[in-house]
Amino acid sequence: MRDTLDFLLYDWLQVQSLQDRPRFADHSRETFDAVLDTCERIAREKFAPFNRVADLEEPRFDGERVHLPASTHAALAAYVESGMLAAAQDHEQGGMQLPLTVEMAANAFFSKASVAMGGYAMLTQGNANLLMAHGTPTQQAVFAANEFSGRWFGTMCLSEPQAGSSLSDVATRAEPDGETFDADPLGPRYRLTGHKMWISGGEHEITENIVHLVLAKIPGSDGKVVPGVKGLSLFIVPKHLVDPQGQLTGERNDVSLAGLNHKLGYRGTTNCLLNFGEGRHRPLGKAGAVGYRVGRPGDGLRCMFHMMNEARIGVGLGAVMLGYAGYEASLAYARQRPQGRPLTAAGKDAAAPQRLIIEHADIKRMLLAQKSYVEGGLALALYCARLVDEQHTGSPEAAVEAQLMLEVLTPIAKSWPSEWCLEANSLAIQVLGGYGYTRDFPVEQYWRDNRLNMIHEGTHGIQALDLLGRKVVMDGGKALMALAGRINQTVQRAGQVAGLATAATALAGALGAVGAATKKAWATGEPEEALANATPYLQAFGHTVMAWIWLELALAVEGRSDDAAQGKRAAQRYFYAYELPRIAAWLSVVERREPLVREMQDGWF
Amino acid sequence: MRDTLDFLLYDWLQVQSLQDRPRFADHSRETFDAVLDTCERIAREKFAPFNRVADLEEPRFDGERVHLPASTHAALAAYVESGMLAAAQDHEQGGMQLPLTVEMAANAFFSKASVAMGGYAMLTQGNANLLMAHGTPTQQAVFAANEFSGRWFGTMCLSEPQAGSSLSDVATRAEPDGETFDADPLGPRYRLTGHKMWISGGEHEITENIVHLVLAKIPGSDGKVVPGVKGLSLFIVPKHLVDPQGQLTGERNDVSLAGLNHKLGYRGTTNCLLNFGEGRHRPLGKAGAVGYRVGRPGDGLRCMFHMMNEARIGVGLGAVMLGYAGYEASLAYARQRPQGRPLTAAGKDAAAPQRLIIEHADIKRMLLAQKSYVEGGLALALYCARLVDEQHTGSPEAAVEAQLMLEVLTPIAKSWPSEWCLEANSLAIQVLGGYGYTRDFPVEQYWRDNRLNMIHEGTHGIQALDLLGRKVVMDGGKALMALAGRINQTVQRAGQVAGLATAATALAGALGAVGAATKKAWATGEPEEALANATPYLQAFGHTVMAWIWLELALAVEGRSDDAAQGKRAAQRYFYAYELPRIAAWLSVVERREPLVREMQDGWF
Repeated sequence: MRDTLDFLLYDWLQVQSLQDRPRFADHSRETFDAVLDTCERIAREKFAPFNRVADLEEPRFDGERVHLPASTHAALAAYVESGMLAAAQDHEQGGMQLPLTVEMAANAFFSKASVAMGGYAMLTQGNANLLMAHGTPTQQAVFAANEFSGRWFGTMCLSEPQAGSSLSDVATRAEPDGETFDADPLGPRYRLTGHKMWISGGEHEITENIVHLVLAKIPGSDGKVVPGVKGLSLFIVPKHLVDPQGQLTGERNDVSLAGLNHKLGYRGTTNCLLNFGEGRHRPLGKAGAVGYRVGRPGDGLRCMFHMMNEARIGVGLGAVMLGYAGYEASLAYARQRPQGRPLTAAGKDAAAPQRLIIEHADIKRMLLAQKSYVEGGLALALYCARLVDEQHTGSPEAAVEAQLMLEVLTPIAKSWPSEWCLEANSLAIQVLGGYGYTRDFPVEQYWRDNRLNMIHEGTHGIQALDLLGRKVVMDGGKALMALAGRINQTVQRAGQVAGLATAATALAGALGAVGAATKKAWATGEPEEALANATPYLQAFGHTVMAWIWLELALAVEGRSDDAAQGKRAAQRYFYAYELPRIAAWLSVVERREPLVREMQDGWF
Repeated sequence: MRDTLDFLLYDWLQVQSLQDRPRFADHSRETFDAVLDTCERIAREKFAPFNRVADLEEPRFDGERVHLPASTHAALAAYVESGMLAAAQDHEQGGMQLPLTVEMAANAFFSKASVAMGGYAMLTQGNANLLMAHGTPTQQAVFAANEFSGRWFGTMCLSEPQAGSSLSDVATRAEPDGETFDADPLGPRYRLTGHKMWISGGEHEITENIVHLVLAKIPGSDGKVVPGVKGLSLFIVPKHLVDPQGQLTGERNDVSLAGLNHKLGYRGTTNCLLNFGEGRHRPLGKAGAVGYRVGRPGDGLRCMFHMMNEARIGVGLGAVMLGYAGYEASLAYARQRPQGRPLTAAGKDAAAPQRLIIEHADIKRMLLAQKSYVEGGLALALYCARLVDEQHTGSPEAAVEAQLMLEVLTPIAKSWPSEWCLEANSLAIQVLGGYGYTRDFPVEQYWRDNRLNMIHEGTHGIQALDLLGRKVVMDGGKALMALAGRINQTVQRAGQVAGLATAATALAGALGAVGAATKKAWATGEPEEALANATPYLQAFGHTVMAWIWLELALAVEGRSDDAAQGKRAAQRYFYAYELPRIAAWLSVVERREPLVREMQDGWF
């Protein structure tokens, strides 16, 4: 993987050129490489060997404490030690001012080695980043700083048992804590009561404290809350209370673990039902979870989305790296496992030795599919990270364009790897055959772990509604036009390269088909007609984006004839021969606004 | 499910008409229904409630004995008690002379309730059926009869650690046991030495004995074996030796459990590495596993295929029933889970109650997809079973045609549900969202269990080679022509029905495209060119067959307007709108003999 990462970062995305910008002036390819080397080593030594342990020794709750394997504690201690939690932060805050692109690339090693153990760190980073954007200076100094240092970890608490995808229906309440609630140096102080479900990292003893970011509703003077997402506000709810200097006061906050969820995979990350304000503890003398408001009342979802967009790209990257881990495991297996003989006349000699399975066409097809999914997925994730860097450090015009591109690419960066790198994991199992179905090999765990990614951080269906219902139509389609502009540039360049002209034409055709389907979906202007087939639209859109990425990568190796370049070219050819043609079937239902699923009635099932 | 089963058996396949045939003269819809009722009840009471137990309490080997949950013992005792093991056998052998179609339908209840617990019974039936076809009268009386009565269970031992899909490379040896080896009443007696891998039901104490059917090679006088599958012979190797009256002699045979495989799913069925002839036991005074030859030397694979074809349809049906179980679970969940609001203007009122998720278009899409996969898959499995009945009891001409149809449909009946009912299970998880990812709901187990079905009984790739490399070209394409003939009859009938004419045209087009791709794949006559894309061919072929099945089912409800009929019609519409168009992408690589996967080199990965 390191070769591919280097190729993507330096040959394709040219991240070394970022040193021309003031924020990254202290950096160079050498400093980037040093970070990558360190992370690769820690992931190899402290994470990968214990990924199965984290799966087999599932978190256990004894009623008081949650127990995790010692190796999980050790791995995260090494991660904290590396300073990666603060890698993208300012020098003056103890950070490295690393570009997000390089930070994401470095974190990819941890996701590949153990996505579940890495989960705690990703959540903590996202949480602290949100506070850097929306918190007060004191909230940043107390909570964010202690998260960046790894002294505390963080969570995001959105879902509730009765409100998963529907945040409108969040029922957790936050009441001002006394008449002087507004005078607390940590922020306006509230008492929260409610239940939060699916909270990753919601309880553990890896760190001395846990910083929960919680969406809740503040009732009006009539005791009622504003219905819908407009009523949501955001709160910091620490597991243990702290003073404005960031020291634990010794008081336990009134938030407690109701139970752990027992999952199909991703078992190394605790996943919790948390009770807020049930009265089990009495911080500051009474029941109710103490929470400090972040941002204005009613502004909670907007603040949280700051974290969710980042989290969505991170989820996509996690899915990619699970796919990558399976690809490498199945490739290694195929290179050493003899089985069967060629289909040629020579293969009829049963006395001849068996061949390695990597020489069978169908095995190569399954490996090529994985390669196209995982390397393409990694490229897309890093491309999105590069857009974030552009948004933060580029020219004003470039920043605006990057923002538009991110709007439309985020649902793809999240959903596409969740679907296709899961398929990659299934293909990895298939390459190993019966052995792949056993727990003696790692591929079955990757497949189980990866199944979460189409569900959390906005399900596949939610991403589809976001894409077709919002992103491609917002501002008169500006974001879609920005993407189309970039794709057309690639088409133009590739059109002039002999070996890529056919692919360029195919990509132009796909882009045109997606554009036409977008228009036809919305031809009647009725959301329920347009969006009935949002998921097939998401799939077709994703495959078109990935075809674009692969043409970009093929252009980046143009003129080279080494093995790595041949491999990229083969993966691009694979994608155009086997994958891109699939979009016709997906788009056909979108463009005719196929009414079947709307017409279907409950009683007919 | 029962409604759909009744519809398929009586309305579509008209199995009640089989009572006109002498073999089934004692039967009627009433006797069939009684069998279905009994099996449905036993599966509901003894299997379904313990399916999770069988998963959580994985088989455990203490070095001497294998431990299974008591509920697995109880379930199989109830199954044995039902007489279903011998259901299809002659009255005079204690059977019911039940048509295979009804037997399969009845067994479907067990697969749905617990595919892994049901596995022991399916293997035992297949094993005993093989002996009825190829064993001596004594072998039938001693081994098959005791399997049909459920006193002993059976296995099939093909794979070895170094030879999974490649049976040519089986290395287990069978040497004649002394000079009088040919005088044993149980059959020519040999001593077997070797290792057999992936043996389902290979060890347990559910029954007092286990009858292994083992492929091995008999060395010539020079000590060498014939390379390839031609050297394979078949042997009965009982775990405990028995006398010609079927009584245990008290001697343990020299076959022992080397270890259990620890699997991703399907955990209720033990899966074993067995050592034959390692000298742990000394039956009849010396080391070596005692085995009795079945059929002629070198005829082992032909005999075994008798069992494998049946087993392949059985595997397909198992995959279908896992899909069905997930469909029912996710449908029930969608009918009671409120979440979100309509996309219409009314949905903007966040104060209004949430709607049930079954009212969301994307949820209906996922349920319809499952419905089309699992009901279509069930129909195909029963159609194949009906062909077997035709082969055995139809007119000579009908039997020949049924045989041809089975040749070409068996790879589809095995592979199609393995792929698409696995996808159904993934969609079931998705419908449940986060809850589907937990072990508190059954759908994650179905998905894990189902992942085995693309691997065992001939992998997906092996099925694809069988279909494109053998079945569609054998006898000048006779089998393919038989299938095309039946599909064209359906097209003709549907073409005259207003609501189905468009689908009929689409099916005719798909059939034509598959036929054309078959020819183009073989245009150069080079197997490695034709077969490089055998798997996409298998997928396109499978979807075409399933489109045909759905058009058949839509014709079977023509004129009806009740809910069930509307449901079948909707599933047919779903399949033609969302699924059938996929074949174009699969066939495009087949018909141009896309060379990419052959050209791909190891070093390029």
